[in-house]
Amino acid sequence: MATLGAPQKHKVTIVGSGNWGTTMAKLVAENVKENPSLFEQTVQMWVFEEEVTIPKESRHYDAGSELANKPQKLSQLINTVHENVKYLPNITLPPNVVANPDLPDSCKNSTILIFVLPHQFIPRVCDQLKGKIVPFARAICCTKGVDVSEKGIRLMSEAIGMHLNIYCGALSGANIASEIAQEKYSETTVAYDPPPMDSRNPTPKGSPTSSQVDLISPSRAVPSARSAHLKALPSEYPPLSHENVRKLFHRPYFHVRLVSDVAGVSLGGALKNIIALAAGFVDGLGWGDNAKAAVMRVGILEMVKFGKAFFAESVHTSTFTEESCGVADVVTSCMGGRNFRCAKMAIERGESVFDIEQKVLNGQKLQGTSTAYEVNEFLKSQGMENDFPLFTAVYNILEGKVKPEEIPELIEPKQ
Amino acid sequence: MATLGAPQKHKVTIVGSGNWGTTMAKLVAENVKENPSLFEQTVQMWVFEEEVTIPKESRHYDAGSELANKPQKLSQLINTVHENVKYLPNITLPPNVVANPDLPDSCKNSTILIFVLPHQFIPRVCDQLKGKIVPFARAICCTKGVDVSEKGIRLMSEAIGMHLNIYCGALSGANIASEIAQEKYSETTVAYDPPPMDSRNPTPKGSPTSSQVDLISPSRAVPSARSAHLKALPSEYPPLSHENVRKLFHRPYFHVRLVSDVAGVSLGGALKNIIALAAGFVDGLGWGDNAKAAVMRVGILEMVKFGKAFFAESVHTSTFTEESCGVADVVTSCMGGRNFRCAKMAIERGESVFDIEQKVLNGQKLQGTSTAYEVNEFLKSQGMENDFPLFTAVYNILEGKVKPEEIPELIEPKQ
Repeated sequence: MATLGAPQKHKVTIVGSGNWGTTMAKLVAENVKENPSLFEQTVQMWVFEEEVTIPKESRHYDAGSELANKPQKLSQLINTVHENVKYLPNITLPPNVVANPDLPDSCKNSTILIFVLPHQFIPRVCDQLKGKIVPFARAICCTKGVDVSEKGIRLMSEAIGMHLNIYCGALSGANIASEIAQEKYSETTVAYDPPPMDSRNPTPKGSPTSSQVDLISPSRAVPSARSAHLKALPSEYPPLSHENVRKLFHRPYFHVRLVSDVAGVSLGGALKNIIALAAGFVDGLGWGDNAKAAVMRVGILEMVKFGKAFFAESVHTSTFTEESCGVADVVTSCMGGRNFRCAKMAIERGESVFDIEQKVLNGQKLQGTSTAYEVNEFLKSQGMENDFPLFTAVYNILEGKVKPEEIPELIEPKQ
Repeated sequence: MATLGAPQKHKVTIVGSGNWGTTMAKLVAENVKENPSLFEQTVQMWVFEEEVTIPKESRHYDAGSELANKPQKLSQLINTVHENVKYLPNITLPPNVVANPDLPDSCKNSTILIFVLPHQFIPRVCDQLKGKIVPFARAICCTKGVDVSEKGIRLMSEAIGMHLNIYCGALSGANIASEIAQEKYSETTVAYDPPPMDSRNPTPKGSPTSSQVDLISPSRAVPSARSAHLKALPSEYPPLSHENVRKLFHRPYFHVRLVSDVAGVSLGGALKNIIALAAGFVDGLGWGDNAKAAVMRVGILEMVKFGKAFFAESVHTSTFTEESCGVADVVTSCMGGRNFRCAKMAIERGESVFDIEQKVLNGQKLQGTSTAYEVNEFLKSQGMENDFPLFTAVYNILEGKVKPEEIPELIEPKQ
C-alpha cells in the first residue's frame, strides 16, 4: 500500500476513556494534529459503553432539550459534545478524538495502542483484542502498578506485551490527570525501547527484551530468550523512534523524558504508593516536614534496591532518583495523594487504614495497601523482608504488628 | 599526656548558640554522654553574649523572683535553667552543655569544632580563633550555603578550613531545627573525609583536599596542591573515623549518613533555596502538585549539573539525588520553607519577591534571592546561563524580565 514519498502513517488508539484515558486522548490528539506526516489525524478512543445522563451542573445540560435528563450512550455523547461529561467534565476534547465503544474496531489497523485502563480490566481487554490487531502494533501502558505475588513480579506492560504478542513500553510520572487536562504544567517519563525496524529481520535484538519477561523472580531465565515473539515494524512506516514517541506525548504543558527502563518506570508507579502510606503515617503523628522528607528519601532508595534486586539487567538507579516516574511521583503522592491522606487520617483518628477504607472509601481498597501486601508476600518468599525495612514496616503497621512510632527505629541504618 | 590504655578524649565545642546551634549542642551532648571513652563529657557552647529577660510565657519566668523582668546574661541563664530561653525555648538542654561567652576559651583544647553560625559571622569568628585552637582540631560546618560570586564559589567549610588551617567537613539535611530539638524523627548528611591519623606524616594524602580549595572556578588549580596545610591528628587521640563522627551526631531521632562529598553537601544546602523559589512561583500560579514536583525534579538535576561542572573531582550525583542534604532538603524546603512561602505569596499578591521581603520580612533578605543572584552572576561570568535554565529563570523572574508562567517553556528540554 505504501507509495514512494508517501509512507503509511501511524494510527493511534487510546484503549480506555476514564479520567486519565480521556486526558491522554486529548493530548495525543493535539499532537497528531501537529504531526500530520507521522500520524493519521483521527485518534480512536475505546469507550466502555454505558448510559449517562448529562448532569445538571454540566455546561452541556440544556433543560429545554428533549435529551435533558435522559440517559444517552457515553460514546455518542462524547462524539457530539466533545467532552467526556462523566469522567472528565468541563474539558473540551479536540474534534479528532473519536469515541468508539467497539473494542476491536477501535484498534483495527492501529500501529500504536495506548493502554489507559484500570489494572483489573487489562487481561479481559487483551483477550478480546487477541488476533484482531496488526501484528506489528506497538503498545504503551499508562496504567500504573505491577502485579506482585509470591511467585514473582509481572509488569502491566509485560502482561499486555505477552498477551498480544507485541512490544509494550510504559508511561508514568507525577501525573494527576485533572491538572494535565487543564493544561497545567506537568512532566512524565516514557519508557520505550523500540525493536529494530527492519522487516527482513523478524526476531529483533536488543533491550526491549528486558521488559518482556513474563514472571520474574531472582532466579529467572535470561530475559533475552523471551523476545522471539516480537514483530518488527514494517519498513513503510515511519520509525517509532524515541523522537517520534516523544512527538506523540510531549506538549508545551506536558514535558516528556524518554528512557529505556520499562521495569523501573513501572515499578516506580507501584512502589510509590507504599511510600505514600509511610509518609501519611509520620505526618499523622505530627512529626513534621523533616520526617516526611526522610521517609520519602528512604523509600526512593528502597525502590532502587527493589529494582536492582529483581530486575538487575534493566533497571537504572536514575529512573527512580532522577525521573518524573520516580522522585517526582513520590513527591506528588506524598503531598496529597489518596494513599497519603488515608494513612494520615488513620493515625489521626487512631483507627486502622482498613477502617478508613471501609468508612471513608466505602470499602474501596487503596492501591498502597494491596501493593504493600503483595510486595511483602514476595519479599517473604525471597527471605528478603529485612532488606526493605520501610516496605516491611508499612506492611507490619497495616497488620497492626508494629506502631508507626517505631518507623525510625525500624529503618535505622545499621552501621 | 596520653597514658597507655587511657587515650586522650576528643573535646567538642559548638561554635554558635542560635536555634540550630543550641539544637546541635543538645544532641551532641546526648551523644558524648553515651560515648564516654571517646569524648570528654562536657560540651562547650560558645554564646554570643547578650542580655535577655525571661519572657513571661516561659516556664522559667517566676514573677516572685528578684530576677523577674531583669535582663540577665544569656550564657549564665543557659547554665542556670538549662534552656536557651531566647533561641530554643521549652527545650531542656542536657546539663553537660556549658554555655561560654568567651570564644577562644570555649574552643581551647577542643579537637572537634562544630560551627553553627549565621553565614556572615564566620570570617570574624575565625579571625578571633586564629592561633588559639589546637593545630590538629577538626571542624564540621553546619551553616548552610556557599559564597558564589563572579570570581568563583567558596564553600563555608572551605572558608573555615583555610582561615583556621584545619580540616573542615559539612553537615546538611532536611533539618528544621525546632523539629529536631523536639526529637521528631529527622535525617541528615555529614560529609567528612578524615585525613590520615599518623602524626609522623604531617602532609596527609587523600580526599579531604577536594573540599579545601579556596576559590574555585572551572579553570582552577588542581585541588590536591592545597592540602599541605592540613595537620594530622596526633595518634594518642581516638581516630575521627566516619564511625566516630557518626557517634557524635547520630541519635535515634536524628539519623546520620556519612559521605565524603563536602562540596556536594554544601552546594545542596545553598542551591535548594533557588528551587524553593521556583516551587513557590508555580504554586502561587495555582498550577498544582504535578508542576511543583516537576520544578523540584528539574532543580535537583540542575544542582547535579552545577556540582559536576564546577566541582568535577569531588561531587557525586548521588549526594543530590539520594541523600538528605539533596532530595530530602529540597522536599522540605518546597513544602513550607520561607523561600517557598514568600515566592508563593509574591505571585498570589501580584507583587515582586522584593516587595514581600520589604513588607512581610521587614527588609530582611531571603537566602534564595541572594543565592539566585550570586549564582547568576557566576554563571554569566562563565557564559553558562543557558545550561541552567531553571536557575536562570528564577533570576529573571526576580528581575522582572520573564514571567513565572514562562517557566515550562524556559526549562523545556531541547530534543
